[in-house]
Amino acid sequence: MISTHIAGYRQQFFIPDGVIYLDGNSLGVLPKATAAAVAKTVEQEWGNGLICSWNTADWVNAPRRCGDKIARLIGANAGEAIACDSTSVNLFKSLLTALALQVKAPERNVIISDIDNFPTDLYIAQGLRDLLASRTLELKFVKRAEMESTIAAFGARTAVVMLTQVDYRTGERYDMKAITALVQSKGALMLWDLAHSTCAFPVELNACNADLAVGCSYKYVNGGPGAPAFVFAAKRHLDTLDAAGTSAPISGWFAHEAPFAFDPLFKVTRGIERFTVGTPPILQFAALEASLDMWLTVDMHALRSASVVLTERFIAEVESQCAGFGLTLATPRGADIRGSQVSFRHAEGYAIIQALIARGVIGDFRAPDVLRFGFTPLYVTEDDVVQAARHLREVMQSREYLRSEFRARGKVT
Amino acid sequence: MISTHIAGYRQQFFIPDGVIYLDGNSLGVLPKATAAAVAKTVEQEWGNGLICSWNTADWVNAPRRCGDKIARLIGANAGEAIACDSTSVNLFKSLLTALALQVKAPERNVIISDIDNFPTDLYIAQGLRDLLASRTLELKFVKRAEMESTIAAFGARTAVVMLTQVDYRTGERYDMKAITALVQSKGALMLWDLAHSTCAFPVELNACNADLAVGCSYKYVNGGPGAPAFVFAAKRHLDTLDAAGTSAPISGWFAHEAPFAFDPLFKVTRGIERFTVGTPPILQFAALEASLDMWLTVDMHALRSASVVLTERFIAEVESQCAGFGLTLATPRGADIRGSQVSFRHAEGYAIIQALIARGVIGDFRAPDVLRFGFTPLYVTEDDVVQAARHLREVMQSREYLRSEFRARGKVT
Repeated sequence: MISTHIAGYRQQFFIPDGVIYLDGNSLGVLPKATAAAVAKTVEQEWGNGLICSWNTADWVNAPRRCGDKIARLIGANAGEAIACDSTSVNLFKSLLTALALQVKAPERNVIISDIDNFPTDLYIAQGLRDLLASRTLELKFVKRAEMESTIAAFGARTAVVMLTQVDYRTGERYDMKAITALVQSKGALMLWDLAHSTCAFPVELNACNADLAVGCSYKYVNGGPGAPAFVFAAKRHLDTLDAAGTSAPISGWFAHEAPFAFDPLFKVTRGIERFTVGTPPILQFAALEASLDMWLTVDMHALRSASVVLTERFIAEVESQCAGFGLTLATPRGADIRGSQVSFRHAEGYAIIQALIARGVIGDFRAPDVLRFGFTPLYVTEDDVVQAARHLREVMQSREYLRSEFRARGKVT
Repeated sequence: MISTHIAGYRQQFFIPDGVIYLDGNSLGVLPKATAAAVAKTVEQEWGNGLICSWNTADWVNAPRRCGDKIARLIGANAGEAIACDSTSVNLFKSLLTALALQVKAPERNVIISDIDNFPTDLYIAQGLRDLLASRTLELKFVKRAEMESTIAAFGARTAVVMLTQVDYRTGERYDMKAITALVQSKGALMLWDLAHSTCAFPVELNACNADLAVGCSYKYVNGGPGAPAFVFAAKRHLDTLDAAGTSAPISGWFAHEAPFAFDPLFKVTRGIERFTVGTPPILQFAALEASLDMWLTVDMHALRSASVVLTERFIAEVESQCAGFGLTLATPRGADIRGSQVSFRHAEGYAIIQALIARGVIGDFRAPDVLRFGFTPLYVTEDDVVQAARHLREVMQSREYLRSEFRARGKVT
C-alpha cells in the first residue's frame, strides 16, 4: 500500500493524458508549481527586476540556497552541499579535491571505480589522468563483484574510490555505509555519485561518514532538463581545505572570497562555495528550487516504502504476465539492494521500448540490452504499474516490436 | 541618427515602465519572444514531451545548434563555435586546449594577459598554473600599455595570450586583428574573451585569424541570467586536435564520440563538440535560442553605427551637463577603440549609481570608482541618453548621492 501522504503528491505534477511515465529516473516530470516559478523568474525577476534581481531576488545566493536545501535531502548539513554546473564538471572538481586532500600521500595514485559505472564518471577520471600526467594516476575500473577485493588489494595506494550508489542499468545499490567504511579503513577517500539516489530513497551521507559526493537534479529531483547538479563535501574536509589554503578546483570568480571586489589575484573563498565557478544559470535554478521546496515536505521513508511497493509489484506483474517472452530480470530481487528502478534484459530491448512508448508507456533503453523502468512514487501509481505490465505483455505477444519503425535506431535516449 | 532598422527592434523587448536601462552590458533585457519560448519549452517540451524531447525537440543538439548561430554573429563558420557551460569553465577548457596545441613546444610555458582583464579570466589561469604544476606555467599579467612590449619580449616562450577584447571597466577595445597577428608572429596562440563584444559590434574572428575565443550570452546577446556561454576554436586547430587524437579538456560524456553508446572507454568526438561536457541546461537554451534568432536578423554594421551615436552623445551630454562635478571620462574618446559602453570615474561612484538606480536610470558600478553605462542600440534610444545625462546632472547638483541609503554597501552588482 502506498501511503496517502505519498499518493497525495500526484496532483502536484503535470502528467500528460494517456501517458504512463516510468522514466523519472532519466527526466522527472514537470511539477505544476515549476511552470509558474520559471515564468515569475523570467517575467518579473529578469523582465522587471533586471540586473537588480541579483540582489533583490537573491539570485547570487541561488547555488548555496539550493545546496542547503539539497543537503537536507541527502543527510548532510547546511554548508556541505552546493548546486552548480553539471554532474560531469562536478565530478572533475570532486576528483581534483580528493587528490588535494591526499596531497601528503603522493604514493596514493590510484582511482578505483566500477567498470559499469555511468560512463561520464569513468570519462572524467580518464581525462584527469591524462591532464595530470605528473601525478601518474592509475585507474582501476573493475566489476562490482571484484570491488571489495580490489579496494582491499589497492587500498594503501588508493587516493579515491568513485562509485555511483545505484547502477544506472540494473538499479543495484551499493551499501553506502559499508563501502565507505572499507575505503576509509584503507586511508582512501570515498566519492559517491548520487544520480539515481537523490529523492529516490533516503540518503544519509553524514550517517555513512561520506567524504565527497556529486548528484544530478533532473532525474528523481524533478529539477528540469539540464538542472544544476550538486557537490557535497564533508565539513571536516572543507575545514582541512580552508586551513591548508587549498585553491578551488576550477578557480572561477564565484569561488573567490569577494567576487565583486574584482581583485586580479585569486583568493579562494572558505567553505562549500569553493566548488562554484561561473555565473549560475538562474532560469534553471528557478525550476530546481520550486522542486526542492516540494521535496522538503516529503517523508522520505514513506517514499521509500512506496518505491518498494511499486518495484516489487512491477517485477511480479511482468514475471507473471510476460513469462516465456525472454525477458530476464536485471535488477536484484532483494529490495534492500535496489534503487527505485526495475530493469529487464532482452536482445530486442530497444525495439520493445519504442513499441511501449508508442503505446504511451515511457521507459528507456540502455545499451546493449537493458529495458529500464523508473518508479517515482510521487506520481506513479500501482495502477500505472499494472497497466504498464499489461502493455508489455501485449507488445511481446503481438510481436509488434518487430515493426521496422520500432527497430530503426537513431533516438538518443 | 539611428537607423529605422535598428530603432524598430525596441518593440521586441520588454522595458519596464519608468526605466532607462543602461546595463545591458551586464544583463540584457528580456526579449518578448523569450518568455513565450521558455514557457513552450517548460510546458510543451518538458511537460508534455518529457524524455522524448531530447529527440523530438532536438534538445540534444542545442549546444551545437546555438553554437552555429553564434558563429554567424562572431565572424566564424558553422562547426567552429559551441554553446555550453559558463565563460569561466570555457576559459579553463580553452586554456587547456591552447596548451594541448602547444604540446610540441614545452618551452612555451608563459600565459600573458592584461592585469585589468575581467578577474575570472585571471583566476582561471592562476588555478591552471597551480593544477598543472609539472608544466611550471608562468603568468604575465601586465598593464595594457605594456601589452605589445610584453608579447614581443616573452613571445618565444609564450603558449597563449588571453585578452578580453573590450575592457569591462573602461570599454577600451583591443585591435583584434593587430594583436592576433603580433601574437601569432611569435608562434603563440591568441585566446579572445568576447564578453563585451558579442552583439555589441561586428566581430570577425576568422577575418582576424583568431585561434580560440570564449564569450558570454547574458550581456549584449540577451540570452538571460546565467545563459550558456560559448567557445570558438578555429577549424585548423580543431583539425589538428582531431588528427592528433587529443582528448577533450574536460572529458564528460557529451564530448564522447557516441555518448549514448555508454562505452566505459572515453573516445573523444571530432570537431567543436569536444568542448561540451555534461547535460545541457535546456531551459537556458530555450531563452538563448529565442534571442539568437532575433540577432540573426540584425544588421551588425547598422548596430555599430547606432552604438557610436549613443556613446558619443552620452559623452557629450555628460561632459556638458555635468561639468565641474568631478566625473572623469574613463572610456577612450576615439570611437574606433571603444566597445559599446561609456564609463566615468568618481570617488563616490557607488553612491552615484545607487542614486541613479533610485531614479530608474540603471547603470552599474565596478570597483574602485567606475560608473559604467552600457548602450544596447536595439532598445536604448537617443532620448534615453539625454534623460540619463539629465538625471546624472540632477544627482550631482543635488548631492542626493550623499544620502546614507545610497552609500551603504552590500549590493553585489
